Amino acid sequence: MTNRIKYPFFVFNPKSYLYGEELLILAKRADELALKYPECSILVTVPYTDISAVKDATKNIIVTAQHMDGIEPGRGMGHVLPESIYHAGARAVFLNHAEKPLTLAALAQSMKKAKAMGIKTIVCADSIDEARAIAVMGADVILCEPTELIGTGKTSDDSYVQQTNQAIKAIDKTILVMQAAGISTAADVYHTIKLGADGTGCTSGITNADSPIDMLTDMVEALMKAFKERGQKK
Amino acid sequence: MTNRIKYPFFVFNPKSYLYGEELLILAKRADELALKYPECSILVTVPYTDISAVKDATKNIIVTAQHMDGIEPGRGMGHVLPESIYHAGARAVFLNHAEKPLTLAALAQSMKKAKAMGIKTIVCADSIDEARAIAVMGADVILCEPTELIGTGKTSDDSYVQQTNQAIKAIDKTILVMQAAGISTAADVYHTIKLGADGTGCTSGITNADSPIDMLTDMVEALMKAFKERGQKK
Amino acid sequence: MTNRIKYPFFVFNPKSYLYGEELLILAKRADELALKYPECSILVTVPYTDISAVKDATKNIIVTAQHMDGIEPGRGMGHVLPESIYHAGARAVFLNHAEKPLTLAALAQSMKKAKAMGIKTIVCADSIDEARAIAVMGADVILCEPTELIGTGKTSDDSYVQQTNQAIKAIDKTILVMQAAGISTAADVYHTIKLGADGTGCTSGITNADSPIDMLTDMVEALMKAFKERGQKK
Amino acid sequence: MTNRIKYPFFVFNPKSYLYGEELLILAKRADELALKYPECSILVTVPYTDISAVKDATKNIIVTAQHMDGIEPGRGMGHVLPESIYHAGARAVFLNHAEKPLTLAALAQSMKKAKAMGIKTIVCADSIDEARAIAVMGADVILCEPTELIGTGKTSDDSYVQQTNQAIKAIDKTILVMQAAGISTAADVYHTIKLGADGTGCTSGITNADSPIDMLTDMVEALMKAFKERGQKK
Repeated sequence: MTNRIKYPFFVFNPKSYLYGEELLILAKRADELALKYPECSILVTVPYTDISAVKDATKNIIVTAQHMDGIEPGRGMGHVLPESIYHAGARAVFLNHAEKPLTLAALAQSMKKAKAMGIKTIVCADSIDEARAIAVMGADVILCEPTELIGTGKTSDDSYVQQTNQAIKAIDKTILVMQAAGISTAADVYHTIKLGADGTGCTSGITNADSPIDMLTDMVEALMKAFKERGQKK
Repeated sequence: MTNRIKYPFFVFNPKSYLYGEELLILAKRADELALKYPECSILVTVPYTDISAVKDATKNIIVTAQHMDGIEPGRGMGHVLPESIYHAGARAVFLNHAEKPLTLAALAQSMKKAKAMGIKTIVCADSIDEARAIAVMGADVILCEPTELIGTGKTSDDSYVQQTNQAIKAIDKTILVMQAAGISTAADVYHTIKLGADGTGCTSGITNADSPIDMLTDMVEALMKAFKERGQKK
Repeated sequence: MTNRIKYPFFVFNPKSYLYGEELLILAKRADELALKYPECSILVTVPYTDISAVKDATKNIIVTAQHMDGIEPGRGMGHVLPESIYHAGARAVFLNHAEKPLTLAALAQSMKKAKAMGIKTIVCADSIDEARAIAVMGADVILCEPTELIGTGKTSDDSYVQQTNQAIKAIDKTILVMQAAGISTAADVYHTIKLGADGTGCTSGITNADSPIDMLTDMVEALMKAFKERGQKK
Repeated sequence: MTNRIKYPFFVFNPKSYLYGEELLILAKRADELALKYPECSILVTVPYTDISAVKDATKNIIVTAQHMDGIEPGRGMGHVLPESIYHAGARAVFLNHAEKPLTLAALAQSMKKAKAMGIKTIVCADSIDEARAIAVMGADVILCEPTELIGTGKTSDDSYVQQTNQAIKAIDKTILVMQAAGISTAADVYHTIKLGADGTGCTSGITNADSPIDMLTDMVEALMKAFKERGQKK
């Protein structure tokens, strides 16, 4: 399979909530959904240790690392070697997440390395200024976490989504925009895609649900429904 | 005086080599040079502790902090409060130096805060990708440290200077470009300005010179000579 | 004056809440209190930029930096050179505050440098394990911030103070123990000293008080009162 | 098998030099050596992604992670969840390596978590002060990298090894001391163990050898030979 990220796309991002069997079960469900809805892409982020097991058990999702360092084989004790995650099966990677912020220099190096290796990048931005900086550096996906709007009551509203979409697409219209702040229900997924996001995703809304498998399913279905209703206009 | 940075400009950047009296003597000499050559700007970076003393003893230079954090008055134990450096007399600040690298989020916050306070930013870039990212975020000056050219024999040659100049000015032609890698003699200053840099600067080439005062003087004079010969074309 | 820290001691720690004139007024009040109560030590932490002004305006307090890096004069752009804070007048320094955490290696270097220069160290510990590690490295004062007790309802109670006191004094009985979690009133100061702390301190309880000057005064008086009542030499 | 670390012990630490098949071949050789010499322990550090594959292919070595974060399952995007490396098969972990330095607070948390999970800790120290701090926090192994002796010609000499051994064992005689600075030949291994180290290890001396498999074998044999000749119970 290719690792091209189609839109709409959904990221199931269990962070450090899951590992081992529990993660595998959900990754397999995500894989079935990706088979059922080939128009969209489904990415599943996994701990480094679980990349190969999830890759071996799936065919249709894009197995995604939670971070990588822009290093070459050699030193780098404790760092995440890009070759090692690629070899294990990762074909996309998150970078600069608020829980793993990178210096500008490290981000540039990781993005350059990812491009050279054919690993897609989902790069996180705290503000519109950062989103624009990341866009000129050439991310594949930009995840907009509207820190600057927190507390203003504007999180995820039309204007924020439109503003970030415009800011990013004005620089490079091939970059996909992900909006995922505060997504906790299938209705949130539906709403976000209707607003024009290329993709969205969820962490604790799924892992803490009564039935994570059902919630994951509902969210992917909401994604597809919203996208079809939106008329595939971009 | 205004803190508008004119071009050409020269940055005397003694880092942590100097403090107290020794620094003050050189700052005063820089001040005389800035008075003598009003067409250019001279910036002197100083340790946080020395900002007020240098400001009090000078009139014509732009007293420059080596870093600041993008915080508001409040918590931030051990951080560098923008209001405190402004109150002490700093009107420009270096950000993201290779010896003080910032996360993208912290850099964006510091730049935003500097803009709000009227503090000019000199932001350091390790690569062309970073220079472009910094340009879209709106730096006043971008210092290009060509890490990606180190060891390639291309440091500071025509093509590198032109490439970074073009990359930055294509995004925002009002941003000034500083080239300062490996400047250790007045001839280096002359050469760099002739190549088209808006400004340059020096650290150990001055602090370790037999006569730092003479070297500083020679460098500023070389800057002016090169700029006049260049015909002020940009 | 000497910079020996006597007990009891009080640290007025305005962090980045204050700078310039407002800070100077309170530092002068602290200085009067230190003159009035020569049995205790009063430390005032100030932004780097304000060290020399506060030092010039006071005689009896120990002017204290909020952090320093364990570097020698030379490179270190944006770092806090120990020589520069000493020259400006600082005679004590906080290290490893939760808002400015240090790697173990950096902490060891800063402590070694402080010792060599005659700068007293107030080193912060999040847990008893850390307090013990810092004690073997030879801090002058250890500030115990009981992160591990947060939410347990045991913060600042007898058992915590006794436990940290014992753990530290068992390693080195000359190290002074500071307990300052949650101090917001003069009664808190009184209580903490009665419990056996060598010193305490306050930030927003003073800076946000209706009258910061009165609150500072009340707290220092509470410190003296409790210490006298405690009537115990240690 | 138990994960108790016996002495002498040898750490094959390929850092980010190896992953996948190449790593697996050497790990299997290490496993054969561990079977052949049951008196010693052999630890092999591997990238996070390779822990499960190396664990599945071996029985006698202690599979070791290059780092872990002291977090609980939950958030922690991009962090290394202890549960995830344990589940994959790691039973020991390096912490605070010079290439992955930790804040004192993070180190304390990771050590506490490792202890709770039964993961052995090999904690790196740059100086004797740090080694003592780490000893009071309760490491299983302390790796002494004599940064403070670099350039003094004293690296790995009798006096340094004795000094660090004494400093650590004086605090806790059950802690194992690893000396590994500059080990590049089997003769270095032999010499270091003869000097009294409990264990040693190697990175590029093995990965860059003409025959990594032979070098690994030679080093483990040198370790055993030196230990037997040393004939000393400790």
